[in-house]
Amino acid sequence: MITLTSDFGLKDPYVAEMKGVILTINPDATLIDITHDIEKFNIRKAAFTLASVSPYFPDGTVHLAVVDPGVGTQRRAILIQTKKGFFVGPDNGILILAAQNQGIEHVYQLTNKKFMMPKVSSTFHGRDIFAPAAAHLKMGVEPLEFGPDVKDPIVPLFAQVKYGKGFLTGEVLDVDGFGNIITNINEKHVVCERGKTISIELTNAPIKLAFRKTYAQAKGKQPILLIGSHGFLEIALNQASAAGKFHAKVGDKIKVSFA
Amino acid sequence: MITLTSDFGLKDPYVAEMKGVILTINPDATLIDITHDIEKFNIRKAAFTLASVSPYFPDGTVHLAVVDPGVGTQRRAILIQTKKGFFVGPDNGILILAAQNQGIEHVYQLTNKKFMMPKVSSTFHGRDIFAPAAAHLKMGVEPLEFGPDVKDPIVPLFAQVKYGKGFLTGEVLDVDGFGNIITNINEKHVVCERGKTISIELTNAPIKLAFRKTYAQAKGKQPILLIGSHGFLEIALNQASAAGKFHAKVGDKIKVSFA
Amino acid sequence: MITLTSDFGLKDPYVAEMKGVILTINPDATLIDITHDIEKFNIRKAAFTLASVSPYFPDGTVHLAVVDPGVGTQRRAILIQTKKGFFVGPDNGILILAAQNQGIEHVYQLTNKKFMMPKVSSTFHGRDIFAPAAAHLKMGVEPLEFGPDVKDPIVPLFAQVKYGKGFLTGEVLDVDGFGNIITNINEKHVVCERGKTISIELTNAPIKLAFRKTYAQAKGKQPILLIGSHGFLEIALNQASAAGKFHAKVGDKIKVSFA
Repeated sequence: MITLTSDFGLKDPYVAEMKGVILTINPDATLIDITHDIEKFNIRKAAFTLASVSPYFPDGTVHLAVVDPGVGTQRRAILIQTKKGFFVGPDNGILILAAQNQGIEHVYQLTNKKFMMPKVSSTFHGRDIFAPAAAHLKMGVEPLEFGPDVKDPIVPLFAQVKYGKGFLTGEVLDVDGFGNIITNINEKHVVCERGKTISIELTNAPIKLAFRKTYAQAKGKQPILLIGSHGFLEIALNQASAAGKFHAKVGDKIKVSFA
Repeated sequence: MITLTSDFGLKDPYVAEMKGVILTINPDATLIDITHDIEKFNIRKAAFTLASVSPYFPDGTVHLAVVDPGVGTQRRAILIQTKKGFFVGPDNGILILAAQNQGIEHVYQLTNKKFMMPKVSSTFHGRDIFAPAAAHLKMGVEPLEFGPDVKDPIVPLFAQVKYGKGFLTGEVLDVDGFGNIITNINEKHVVCERGKTISIELTNAPIKLAFRKTYAQAKGKQPILLIGSHGFLEIALNQASAAGKFHAKVGDKIKVSFA
Repeated sequence: MITLTSDFGLKDPYVAEMKGVILTINPDATLIDITHDIEKFNIRKAAFTLASVSPYFPDGTVHLAVVDPGVGTQRRAILIQTKKGFFVGPDNGILILAAQNQGIEHVYQLTNKKFMMPKVSSTFHGRDIFAPAAAHLKMGVEPLEFGPDVKDPIVPLFAQVKYGKGFLTGEVLDVDGFGNIITNINEKHVVCERGKTISIELTNAPIKLAFRKTYAQAKGKQPILLIGSHGFLEIALNQASAAGKFHAKVGDKIKVSFA
């Protein structure tokens, strides 16, 4: 099984070209589109989408993701092997949130021309490098055959959670259609009792929030903290926009303190 | 084979999450999207779409459909077994038009937690209840294992055709892009000779129409009655909008008299 | 493997109906969408898309393409057998660019009712004629069983390249999102040394261009000629719009001279 995520849209033939390349190499591959309607060049949104969806796919799935404003520059093409599966795409942070959630085992650079298209364009590595890599990987090629180890994959700010004494800091990853503020802090970072009150600072403004299990446990207009269905810590208001109330936007800094 | 219909759109990861859940349970399932661009919460449109498309799928197909404004309330989750296949979704009428066309054999409520995701959210039963049910059903789980019989599935007005003495009443289900007025009366209700003139009342305005086989048999600006390619009775004008001429809109009452 | 290209969009159930028909006949078919967002009735755009994408699919692929403003008229339904695979669709030029690139071997008219839906509508041959033809073809039915030879398939102007003494003429097939002017002249027509300067006339305005290998070889604001990733000759400006500079639009005549 190979999933595809990109900002290519479905009007142009790019997605179909990637699929044609994969199926030429590996006719038995099952291809599942995650979405191709990521906002152009929005790596953070693609990374969040991939992190939200990948937990629902079987072990061994290869996730191919291409939002690639740096195509044709020196940015590396990489393959990440995790405890659960594989991620293939540009080394710009698109893969890292999802891969961190699964537990990263190895990162390899895609340099072996044997597993690329004969002609590699400078504008479309999705078709010429990433699609063939995903197809060959699914055919059983060993990850280390694709190229050398990468010790320092790009970890953008949106994929960094930092620990201090009694607190951790992260940032706002997404604001969903309901106005819920989704942070990059996941359930592995926050080992915390439900029901407790937790102190937050959102772009330096202090808020006290109760940590709950479901949206329905929010009483009246009381904002709450919970782990959303994507596995990330979020701030929510029952049937109202938390982002509106707290003037929060994507990229805002957040600090979570444990009393 | 499992088909998917929803109002989730393809920008968000919801559809991909349902597919991931299905393929984790049943890696050999063939997944076919009907559409995910149903207008938000438009159950009637989804029901009509499903009824139009399902006749073209093989026997044994599982049709999964989720337009679910009542998610998280007491509305039931159901599985309908018909003479031709299966329908899985919320008990709000979305499945019923298509299932009636195939001949309903049994309706079951989905209550057995064994065939749900371990954590069932209150906001996304598509992923947590309906997708796993469809996947398990396709794996050979017996319908009656999913839960108790449902004797009174919701049949909304748009799925009700009522018989009187020498007439039947229904409603306008859809107005298509050509302005054809599509009713909820299907070819099983209307056993009628082609060529006959039939009396209609459309929101109480009487019209006399000839019952024809194809659009091309409409002469000049003469409106006709025919069974459309979706199997429903419709009022059409050759190369003009019948809905415009008769000021018809979705939900309008229609009465068909047989002389 | 069967690919699908159309102008049906994904809101309406048409694409799903075609897929249902194919999978009812041939449950093991692998279906790949190229795009269903071709501009309504834009045969040229569909032909260009198909020509761009088809080289990336495996030998033996059946490409089903339906942009069909002439449905219900006398226009023929055809099957083109090439050196690499098959094309199925209306005889209006939609298939011809891609088929020419692969090398056309035979063209057949689809007349055998055995391989059509029992009821053929006058409005939707995609479902009633083309989808079943593609499915049966992939099941191993011999091309000549579908109907008689077609000696004169429609070749629209956009698929015609004409040779003169020391020159050839074609037209502008597409202007892409970067403003690159893509012509209908392909790499088989132009056997030419890279680096050479070539004389072009674009709607009678003469231009001299260097023939290069990649966009990056364009120096400063110097327009260049190259073979794009879709295999067609194009006029490009490094990081600027060639179409803007030369006031070029789809359908413009182009003449290429070889000194």
